[in-house]
Parts: sequence; C-alpha cells; structure tokens
Amino acid sequence: MVKGNNSLLCVGLDSDGEKLPASIKQFEFNRAIIDATKDLVCAYKPNMAFYEAYGIDGLKALKKTIEHIPSHIPVILDAKRGDIGNTSKLYAQSCYNDLKVDAVTLHPYMGSDTVLPFLEFEGKGVFVLVKTSNPSAIEIEDLVTKDGETVSLKVARKVAEWNKKFNGRVGAVVGATYPKDLRVIREILGDAWFLVPGVGAQGGNVREVVSAGQNKAGDGIIINSSREIIFASAGSDFAEKAREKAERLRSEINLARGISA
Amino acid sequence: MVKGNNSLLCVGLDSDGEKLPASIKQFEFNRAIIDATKDLVCAYKPNMAFYEAYGIDGLKALKKTIEHIPSHIPVILDAKRGDIGNTSKLYAQSCYNDLKVDAVTLHPYMGSDTVLPFLEFEGKGVFVLVKTSNPSAIEIEDLVTKDGETVSLKVARKVAEWNKKFNGRVGAVVGATYPKDLRVIREILGDAWFLVPGVGAQGGNVREVVSAGQNKAGDGIIINSSREIIFASAGSDFAEKAREKAERLRSEINLARGISA
Repeated sequence: MVKGNNSLLCVGLDSDGEKLPASIKQFEFNRAIIDATKDLVCAYKPNMAFYEAYGIDGLKALKKTIEHIPSHIPVILDAKRGDIGNTSKLYAQSCYNDLKVDAVTLHPYMGSDTVLPFLEFEGKGVFVLVKTSNPSAIEIEDLVTKDGETVSLKVARKVAEWNKKFNGRVGAVVGATYPKDLRVIREILGDAWFLVPGVGAQGGNVREVVSAGQNKAGDGIIINSSREIIFASAGSDFAEKAREKAERLRSEINLARGISA
Repeated sequence: MVKGNNSLLCVGLDSDGEKLPASIKQFEFNRAIIDATKDLVCAYKPNMAFYEAYGIDGLKALKKTIEHIPSHIPVILDAKRGDIGNTSKLYAQSCYNDLKVDAVTLHPYMGSDTVLPFLEFEGKGVFVLVKTSNPSAIEIEDLVTKDGETVSLKVARKVAEWNKKFNGRVGAVVGATYPKDLRVIREILGDAWFLVPGVGAQGGNVREVVSAGQNKAGDGIIINSSREIIFASAGSDFAEKAREKAERLRSEINLARGISA
C-alpha cells in the first residue's frame, strides 16, 4: 500500500465515542472516514482502548470497522499487548484470528516470551514499543545502562534480532517527538518498519521524522495521525475534512521524502 | 479478605476454553470454582486474554464471572495494560466502570503516563509489573543501569513513589521465581502490596516467597495460583479438587508465615 497509494500515512482510528458528531455511531463514523481516505493511506490503526471502553458494543464496532477496511490495506491494531507464553498466544489469536488484523503493537518489558508467540502466526507482524512519543517515556525507556546505551536502544537491538530471525515481520514503535532517538534506532534496525506516532498534536515535525526515520530505500516509516485527521471537523462534513487533512499530511510527508505528492 | 479468610492466596481464573471439562462453559466453570473456593482466597485474578480470545462470548463470560464474585472479595484483572493519557484513561474506564474490577495489572515501560490515569479512579488499585516470573524477564528487566541497579529495581522505585503519593493504591507484580529480587524489591517498597505469580508449575517455592516477600506486618503478598488449582482435575469433580488444592496452598502459605492454617 505504500506504493499503491504513494503514501506513508497511517490513519489512527481513535474514534472516541464522546467526540463523534451528533447521532453518529463508532462504526458509521469509521466507515465514513475509511471511505474518504482509503486511497491516501498505507495502513489504518484502530486503537483498542477506544472500543474496549464501550464493552460488547465497542467490540462489535471494531470488528465491523476492520471488515470494512479494504483487504489490500493493512490494519495495525494498537493494543499494546504484553503477556507471556500461552497467554500471549491467546492475545495473538484474538487479534489475528478473531479480529483479523495484520499487525499488533506489543510491550517489550517481559522480553521474547511476549513477542515470539505472536510470530507463530505466519504472515502477521508486530510492532514492538521501542521509544514512545509521550513525555514520561523518559522515565524507564531513557534509563542509561552500564555500557552507556539507553533501555530503548537495548530494546531496539532485541527488535533487530527478532526481525532478522522472522524475515522482516518485527517492526518498532518510535515516537515522532524524539527525532534524535529515531535516527539512532534507524541505524540499529536497518530496513525494519517503524510505526511513528506523535506528529502534529504531540509536537513531532514531519520533515525531521522523515529525515531521521526513513531507511535506505526511502521508506520504512509508517507515520500515524489520529485525532488531527479524524476529528478535523466536529460537524457533518467530518469525512470531507478528514480527507483534506489526510491529503495534506500525505503530501507533506512525500515532499519531505523528495518525491512528488 | 486477607484477614476474613485468613489467606494470602489468590486464585487465577485463567479459564482456557480448551481445557475445560466436557460440555461446561467458561462462566459455569468459573462459577463452580468461585463457589468452591470463596472462603479460602484473598482475591481472584481473571486473566483477560482467556476471555478476549473468545470475542464477545468471552467478554460476556468475564462480566458474569466478575458479577458472581462476592463483593467483599477483590477482583484483580490481569490485563497488563499499558498506554498513555486519554487512552490509558479509557482502559481504566473499561476495567473499573464497565467490568467493575478493583485492580488492574499495568506495564511500566511508558512511565507515569500509563499509571496515573488509572489512579484518578478513587478507591481502585493497580499492580505494576516490576519483575515478572517468566524466563525472558531477564532480557529487559535485568538490564543493569549505570549506577548498578537493574531496570526492574528502577521500576520498583517509581512504584514506591506512586504508592506513597496515592496512599497504598499502587502495588507491584513480582514473580515467585526470583526470590532474591523479591527480597530487594520488598526493601524498596516498604509495606506495598505485591502480586506474586509463579508458585508451583513455574517453579516458585512458597516458603522462599513468603520469607523474601512479606512485609513487616507479615502480609503484603498476594500469592497467585491459576492452572494448578482450577485444572486440578479434568473431570466433573474439578471444583472439589480445586478446593482441595486451594486449601492445601493456603495452609502451606500460612505455615510459611508461622500462623495456624
């Protein structure tokens, strides 16, 4: 989809029920956003929390949303799962078999026991949290280990190891808000795919992200934007405005890559 | 419940649908386990993955299970959530308001931005992963920082800080399989509550866990056992056998505490 839509833009479906335009439901909202942006994106990223918060109704809306996404566009479930062994396998089953997504975000804290069960599912991918975009990412992720590397760089080295072993199916989540880290993590991770949240509202700069994050082939980054696109308008023109925002951001990203928008 | 049932035993409701006795469903299985053990435990710990794996039916079974647990027994949802800000708050809403549990397990990797939104819910608690019981816990959790302390001890110091600020509502998950760490983490965390998985099948020894993990008052540890109790028998006598196992483990724990079983 990166090539088909000439896009490194991922639209985050953080469809907070409280922010939807009047009398529209989660699935209807997502359907309109998807219909309006599906030729502009390389992936969609629903955030599990926004559906779980509505219990069974939310889960139904999530499933219908995933079914509505054209099958050639990858779906990254931002579920930030992190358990071990058999439990991890069940989470993977839930994500890949029940929800039928293509990739899932994972916590690295418990190590390989979290990640490997997900990789038993052929053709599916994971994105492991390496350096996240939030302010308190510094508390644990930036702890400096005795050889001078931060914890997040040590995690990046684990991701590189898994990605090599599993033929490119292991990517990294690296926040747009820390471009210096992005550059160092790219050096560690070679050609691996990065999921990059945090442009726009959180302060990440597109030009810096592309410059620091792209791989040698000039891609390898999936730049996510959620609220700024899907809530571009609170009115009935929300889908149209979302499309405008998505077009603008895709162009901005492509301009930074030095290719025509 | 620790005093009422004279127990530090938590029964983990890891009710794997594939391991249930013939023709019994998740909720019916859990109901029988709860009815057979409710005078023996200090808490129940359903593991979210085992319900999510069954989609909407699983979520319904989980809700019915939680409703069936007597209201004076705390429910710890082992969901290992870990997101930030508004997303973290939605996970908290889902756990506390929709599922109505008393405490949730959380990942520390993203820092305070994960933990603090959960603590906005008065009277509710969290257990933050500090040192987990699995083999690959050593990969990230045991990284040594430049001042000689491991990452897990640094996390323990954050937990101590949060627990002080939020009046005892922040506990730690510390695996039974690493008793040396348990002792050091207890020193850092004073009187805080520990959720301790990994006795039995995973190799943790009850006497060592109690000796290394208890606080000055002689409690402060919630020792979880899941499969060894709930799957003590694969036959129709599963609830009776679960009760026997739970009684034995409660006694073993109390014996190690030096109090009558």
